[in-house]
Amino acid sequence: MAAEIVNPRGERGADEAQDELFDPAFALHRGGKMAIEATVPVRDRDDLSLAYTPGVAKVCSAIAEQPDLVHDYTWKSQVVAVVTDGSAVLGLGDIGPEASLPVMEGKAILFKQFGGVDAVPIALDCREVDDIVDTVARLAPSFGGVNLEDISAPRCFEVERRLQERLDIPVFHDDQHGTAVVTLAALRNAAKLTGRSLGRLRAVISGAGAAGVAIAKILVEAGIGDVAVCDRKGIVSEGREDLNPVKRELAGFTNKAGLSGPLEKALDGADVFIGVSGGTVPEEAVATMAKDALIFAMANPTPEIHPDVAHKYAAVVATGRSDFPNQINNVLAFPGIFAGALQVRASRITEGMKLAAAEALAAVVADELSAECVIPSPFDERVAPAVTAAVAAAARAEGVARR
Amino acid sequence: MAAEIVNPRGERGADEAQDELFDPAFALHRGGKMAIEATVPVRDRDDLSLAYTPGVAKVCSAIAEQPDLVHDYTWKSQVVAVVTDGSAVLGLGDIGPEASLPVMEGKAILFKQFGGVDAVPIALDCREVDDIVDTVARLAPSFGGVNLEDISAPRCFEVERRLQERLDIPVFHDDQHGTAVVTLAALRNAAKLTGRSLGRLRAVISGAGAAGVAIAKILVEAGIGDVAVCDRKGIVSEGREDLNPVKRELAGFTNKAGLSGPLEKALDGADVFIGVSGGTVPEEAVATMAKDALIFAMANPTPEIHPDVAHKYAAVVATGRSDFPNQINNVLAFPGIFAGALQVRASRITEGMKLAAAEALAAVVADELSAECVIPSPFDERVAPAVTAAVAAAARAEGVARR
Repeated sequence: MAAEIVNPRGERGADEAQDELFDPAFALHRGGKMAIEATVPVRDRDDLSLAYTPGVAKVCSAIAEQPDLVHDYTWKSQVVAVVTDGSAVLGLGDIGPEASLPVMEGKAILFKQFGGVDAVPIALDCREVDDIVDTVARLAPSFGGVNLEDISAPRCFEVERRLQERLDIPVFHDDQHGTAVVTLAALRNAAKLTGRSLGRLRAVISGAGAAGVAIAKILVEAGIGDVAVCDRKGIVSEGREDLNPVKRELAGFTNKAGLSGPLEKALDGADVFIGVSGGTVPEEAVATMAKDALIFAMANPTPEIHPDVAHKYAAVVATGRSDFPNQINNVLAFPGIFAGALQVRASRITEGMKLAAAEALAAVVADELSAECVIPSPFDERVAPAVTAAVAAAARAEGVARR
Repeated sequence: MAAEIVNPRGERGADEAQDELFDPAFALHRGGKMAIEATVPVRDRDDLSLAYTPGVAKVCSAIAEQPDLVHDYTWKSQVVAVVTDGSAVLGLGDIGPEASLPVMEGKAILFKQFGGVDAVPIALDCREVDDIVDTVARLAPSFGGVNLEDISAPRCFEVERRLQERLDIPVFHDDQHGTAVVTLAALRNAAKLTGRSLGRLRAVISGAGAAGVAIAKILVEAGIGDVAVCDRKGIVSEGREDLNPVKRELAGFTNKAGLSGPLEKALDGADVFIGVSGGTVPEEAVATMAKDALIFAMANPTPEIHPDVAHKYAAVVATGRSDFPNQINNVLAFPGIFAGALQVRASRITEGMKLAAAEALAAVVADELSAECVIPSPFDERVAPAVTAAVAAAARAEGVARR
């Protein structure tokens, strides 16, 4: 009965496109999801002359003389730029900067809700690595950190590396490191639950994009026994001639077993499957995994291995979905990681800070640990404070804290 | 007794620099003056799956298919970037991007307080016109408008012109046009009060920077009898060999009387003095102005002509200060101008929209018009709605409204 419905613009809906306007998601997003609020009063001339001219002038002069005062007397140290070029948005791919804005706003309000961190969506109308790097570097004076988001691989790696070299504020590509931190936390708990150390596990990662590469790195940092990463052409191995520089580097520090061939080859006898690729893994291949397998099939909305199938072979199953137990959700990591980094004015987010975040996140569910609970819920209020404190402490320990 | 005081960091103040930390302005600015707030709930998994994945995906897809939906389903149409390079901040000059942030935050909260417009401070670490233009153009997808602020002349003119050519959202250099709109509004009322039309007035502007040039332009648009602009070397006139391109253009459409020489020469017999330069005008020169002179000495904190001196010779005196009557304050214009432009999704801010803003602003005090009230108070609640409505209507009339 679409013809009976009137949408928020007062138009009568007839076709499917117009029906979309009655979807609760559209209703929620109407007018955007965020706003600015003043945290000081501007009620009268006295307020105005303190908050703006002439009172503001002495604050400006003080910062000009002593630049680090910018952290004390502006919102710089509590605000993060959420930067994208719209090239790899959710599962939608390259939809451009404007169409990516609802995701960036969503991210911004999650920063606020879960970490108390202010965040501003910055969707860029440029694609060259040089242009993205220059643009972000130029706006960095206004921000305490940069969260890179939904920038396609392999450009995302170079954008992040170059910005980290150039800026003295944290630059963090959440699709890589947020996912990696939460995956490591869940894997630590799953290993503990099944009585194994990380060093005894052989893992297979399906997907060699931003998330796959970062998960491989953090697993190696954390001491995983072995990890093989697979792209569409199979196991990333040193013998392959078709690897871009990022995958070539990956081949150098993963796959100690020296496997080559399709994903199925790697999966045979593996302890851990981590899916960040989309696609589907045939049940026959899942059946070849080791006993008490740990299956993290994180593609959204369709896991690489459906939980019903995974449970036939695995001791622990995790997905990216909120309607199954053990949701691997970046929101468990990024708000606390930035909150901790900003709290101590860290100049960067080190490997040690990420590992500390994963440890803290895993520890939150230590007492409730079970096959259905290897990772806390995003709404567990213990999460952000625990991650924040661990990251701040790690920043101090690693010498990147500036207060 | 500075040694007795403990500042907000817990440090005991002894020297003058530390005493500054007890200044009420410093206390007010501590931690910045603004924050982000979420306007939708994120209380549980259902909220999260609407505001973020998976619900957000269909909103993104809809915008990718129909780009103008970005105005409906994000905050783009209600948020303005307040962009500076920190090169000409208040009377402080070139203090750089970080030190300019307290001003930009102040501006942002005035946008919110007076116009209901969200605004984000963007202080850029670059100075070349090309770099500023490229950077702002690249971040434009995220914003409904661009307020340029405190960029030094003459670069500010070219930055604005090139961004206006390149973008389909309003780009407005407030130091120019905000000042010009408020000055014109006050001058209209002052002329009316003293029984003269603008066409009968000869004006002298001291200062050929951003504000001076824009005031000259709007006065000519509004039909001023004649206007001469003076820089440090005297009257900007066609005979001068030392003019930059902006001043050369200015010489072409001002100074119909063909005056040359120092400011004093222009002031002799002039009806209107408009000071946007700093510096001091000798009383002897003020004394040579025509009867019932209108003196707007807007330099802050020291007016070019002190009100006590100005009142000896003038029928109406205005300043930039809040502690004298008739404060020429940009906050009377920019919030309503952007609110009106955003309301109708104007692609630009035209001369007609600025003139309409000035008319509406002048009309607010029509009933209370007096020598002490040629312009409303910034806290007059009628101002922003009047300016907003006039600007929106003018945008429609001029064909730049997109809804």
